[in-house]
Amino acid sequence: MNAAQLFEQIQQKRSFLCVGLDTDLSRIPEFLLSKEDPIFEFNKAIIDATAEYAVAYKPNLAFYEHYGSSGWDSLQKTVKYIRVNHPNILTIADAKRGDISNTARMYAKTFFERLNFDAITLSPYMGQDTVEPFLNFEGKWAILLALTSNSSHSDFQLIENTATGKYIFEEVISKSLNWGTENSIMYVAGATHAEMLADIRKIAPDHFLLVPGVGEQGGNLANVAKYGMNSKCGLIINSSRGIIYADRSMRFAGAAKIKAMALQKEMERLLKEASLI
Amino acid sequence: MNAAQLFEQIQQKRSFLCVGLDTDLSRIPEFLLSKEDPIFEFNKAIIDATAEYAVAYKPNLAFYEHYGSSGWDSLQKTVKYIRVNHPNILTIADAKRGDISNTARMYAKTFFERLNFDAITLSPYMGQDTVEPFLNFEGKWAILLALTSNSSHSDFQLIENTATGKYIFEEVISKSLNWGTENSIMYVAGATHAEMLADIRKIAPDHFLLVPGVGEQGGNLANVAKYGMNSKCGLIINSSRGIIYADRSMRFAGAAKIKAMALQKEMERLLKEASLI
Repeated sequence: MNAAQLFEQIQQKRSFLCVGLDTDLSRIPEFLLSKEDPIFEFNKAIIDATAEYAVAYKPNLAFYEHYGSSGWDSLQKTVKYIRVNHPNILTIADAKRGDISNTARMYAKTFFERLNFDAITLSPYMGQDTVEPFLNFEGKWAILLALTSNSSHSDFQLIENTATGKYIFEEVISKSLNWGTENSIMYVAGATHAEMLADIRKIAPDHFLLVPGVGEQGGNLANVAKYGMNSKCGLIINSSRGIIYADRSMRFAGAAKIKAMALQKEMERLLKEASLI
Repeated sequence: MNAAQLFEQIQQKRSFLCVGLDTDLSRIPEFLLSKEDPIFEFNKAIIDATAEYAVAYKPNLAFYEHYGSSGWDSLQKTVKYIRVNHPNILTIADAKRGDISNTARMYAKTFFERLNFDAITLSPYMGQDTVEPFLNFEGKWAILLALTSNSSHSDFQLIENTATGKYIFEEVISKSLNWGTENSIMYVAGATHAEMLADIRKIAPDHFLLVPGVGEQGGNLANVAKYGMNSKCGLIINSSRGIIYADRSMRFAGAAKIKAMALQKEMERLLKEASLI
């Protein structure tokens, strides 16, 4: 999927919502635990309930690796289920990988070919040669951590470079602009720093930003749109726990649907305000 | 395992060698491919051949994830095999993870409890709250990427902080010194920058350094020892491809043994020179 196709989907669905599939057996409805693959059953129900409101799904690998080989199977089945039933929806592996080039090539093949994800999140700490192996796959994306939503983001991301006066997260964005294009690179920028999205837009006006931190982490959707939206929307906003754990009863999927729809409605309003739909 | 126990093992074995288990089906001897679990069979033979010369084994997760759930099973069997047959050897998950705290807690439980690794490599980009969940496990280690061995390490790790005049990799080390102790934190510092290990020693005189990049990546063992060794050795030097792919015939394990022994002999000489044995 390229950026134009992603924007087209955003216009059709009137939504730029990503649902984070951080599926934790200790938080899903108990009645699912007796199923053969509770994680996949949960994901399937959440996906079916939210697919009309979402343009992306983002499983965080930590939650699948935790269950070893069976978790890995659940992940694979989940991606395949999205591919088959909702082929236009972007699938993001929230893996935050980053390793030397021969190892990065293995990761790229695993996530883009074997698992058939559209995108993967990467840590930029080791630099260009750890990102490049992910940029040679047509229609696939590397999503680089830039300004993350957690409180200790400031430890290193807000250090100022003596030579340029830029913060490290700005260095990550400006240096990597030349590694790929707006059809192969996105950036993670937390909703908890909405005003700073304006600074990011000065460096990367055209790239999509993946924005976590709305909901349980406290970020505000309207502010994210105010400072981060561009003429092609340019935003994918993630909500995980706020949607998928909205209810723990038999009606969990319906509750997730209501939460996703509420976010979609607000996104629709914001897209209209910006005259993008 | 704490730092004193690790040093004790180094003295006993007269070695500070870590063998990297980057097991790739396209590079292991062909006759193994017909076995039920070729990756585990390969690892088992390599481990048995090199255990008397090694103080640590380091599987890189990329090579196991690549084979999905079966790769994950091979990894689990490998760690268990080391635990049972060579219980004093440090096991390092080369995973380079790093995520927000609730997710980091999942990773920590996965690698330290479920898989029972002694140590895991982490990317420091997201700061303290992404590392802390790994520091509450008695006898376990977080190994933070500081100065990596790849050529694009300079993209971000060598940016100088306006406020302190320190490089980012130095900031990673100096800030994280207070997050744990020399019994819970190590740092990755590439053998390809041997002289810079002296700068690292000024900030972290007592911590163990995990040093990749000897062998195929071109790092020099004697220089690493010259600039990086401390009074408790303080070094674990990794070699992966140079040992495990020394030969692709039926005699691959014997060839790996010879390579590991050669490195151990040089390490013994360096430990003697430093009067540590």
